[in-house]
Amino acid sequence: MIQRSTHQTPVTRVHASGATVQEMDLIAAEEPLEIRVDGRPVAITMRTPGHDLDLVAGFLYTEGVIDGPDDLQAIAHINDPSAPRGNTVDTVLAAGVPAARRSAADRAMYASSSCGVCGKETIDRLMVTHPPLTQHLDPPPDLLTSLPERLRTEQAVFDQTGGLHAAALVTPDGGLEVVREDIGRHNAVDKVVGWRLRADQVPVHDRILLVSGRVGFEIVQKALVARIPVIAAVGAPSSLAVQLAQGAGMQLIGFLRDGRYNRYAD
Amino acid sequence: MIQRSTHQTPVTRVHASGATVQEMDLIAAEEPLEIRVDGRPVAITMRTPGHDLDLVAGFLYTEGVIDGPDDLQAIAHINDPSAPRGNTVDTVLAAGVPAARRSAADRAMYASSSCGVCGKETIDRLMVTHPPLTQHLDPPPDLLTSLPERLRTEQAVFDQTGGLHAAALVTPDGGLEVVREDIGRHNAVDKVVGWRLRADQVPVHDRILLVSGRVGFEIVQKALVARIPVIAAVGAPSSLAVQLAQGAGMQLIGFLRDGRYNRYAD
Repeated sequence: MIQRSTHQTPVTRVHASGATVQEMDLIAAEEPLEIRVDGRPVAITMRTPGHDLDLVAGFLYTEGVIDGPDDLQAIAHINDPSAPRGNTVDTVLAAGVPAARRSAADRAMYASSSCGVCGKETIDRLMVTHPPLTQHLDPPPDLLTSLPERLRTEQAVFDQTGGLHAAALVTPDGGLEVVREDIGRHNAVDKVVGWRLRADQVPVHDRILLVSGRVGFEIVQKALVARIPVIAAVGAPSSLAVQLAQGAGMQLIGFLRDGRYNRYAD
Repeated sequence: MIQRSTHQTPVTRVHASGATVQEMDLIAAEEPLEIRVDGRPVAITMRTPGHDLDLVAGFLYTEGVIDGPDDLQAIAHINDPSAPRGNTVDTVLAAGVPAARRSAADRAMYASSSCGVCGKETIDRLMVTHPPLTQHLDPPPDLLTSLPERLRTEQAVFDQTGGLHAAALVTPDGGLEVVREDIGRHNAVDKVVGWRLRADQVPVHDRILLVSGRVGFEIVQKALVARIPVIAAVGAPSSLAVQLAQGAGMQLIGFLRDGRYNRYAD
């Protein structure tokens, strides 16, 4: 699998004075990935190529199609003559995956862009299938405030392009276990969760989910499904993200920067 | 229609030292909006409440369902007992809207999160239905570099919450014609384009589309459909955004900040 996380492109750099310089520049790669289940297309996501199998495994897990690595009998890039190589991943679910979860694949596309008409109703529904967390983590303030700078040093493609979101799993003593970048913030989360799933390490009870940007409902939903007890975001949370984290017994931290942060739920 | 673009929430502010302060804080509202066409749900988008009718009109236009205001016979919030008031908008299409475009509504949800398996193929297909622009704009560098600060002063909710994307339409002499904020960057664009459509002012030949963040494929696609000749983004562009803008004869500007910018296509 060739990695194409950046593209070269000619650029004209312009100053307010009108002075210009022509150069080559690196930009973040964005390509569509088609996700198939048992040969059937269920979703297309615009993503940054790289770690595609982790992305697909994480997507199927956080959208409720698979419950763990045993549900995923096979996963591979396939060569569809109608699509460029590397932009289609097919999966085979284990025979034991119940029909209700198989059909979740058909709702996954829908679900990944929405949460139903009524936020409150959806939160209640999520709580039925995914009860509040009972295992918690309480990372000390100085550990949390050290994270953004360390995430940044791991963001290789961002440094080249300024164009990517990052997600990381952080151990209780502050180690960055895995860091992934993507043009889509939910894809970056699916990549780190999928990496754990493929290593047979889900649920993720004892990690902090660190994200480089803002945190909306979808990110909290994915963390809840993966049973991650703490989300720490460099950017702002949304109202529905806070509401879900509170209901789920998760710790939600926002504006983690400049040696401080806000705790919205714990 | 009650505006709920911010929510109040209790927050614990924490410093690296461990010192904490309990306060009330404002966060950006995120709620699902169900979009219906002739009574049929076609999409749900997580959005910041406010300017919902502009959002829906802009969405239907930039996704190819309607071609102009005459195609939209009626648009209104409806009161569905199963959903909280204000989170469902229904539309009635004019009798003359052809079946092919009506069925585009069914693809809209899909289309809004994707562009087909092959970026290149999709760009070619877009070019058939939406030929390259023939009307151009060439805003002077000092006009462009003045925009980010002026956008920021208009970003009322961002200033309160730090949590929103903004989009604006800018006149050739630098006036900010309309500014909208949303938790979703594509929603902010749909809101400004929909505002023009409902004022019977599409296509949008003579405006710059200014966006507060990064610019991916979807934003360029929406601007192409609306025939906007220049996109200026404070953040980075993606590879597919650059490719589409080049093919469509649009000017694409990125990293518009600190008195300079990069021109990726013109």
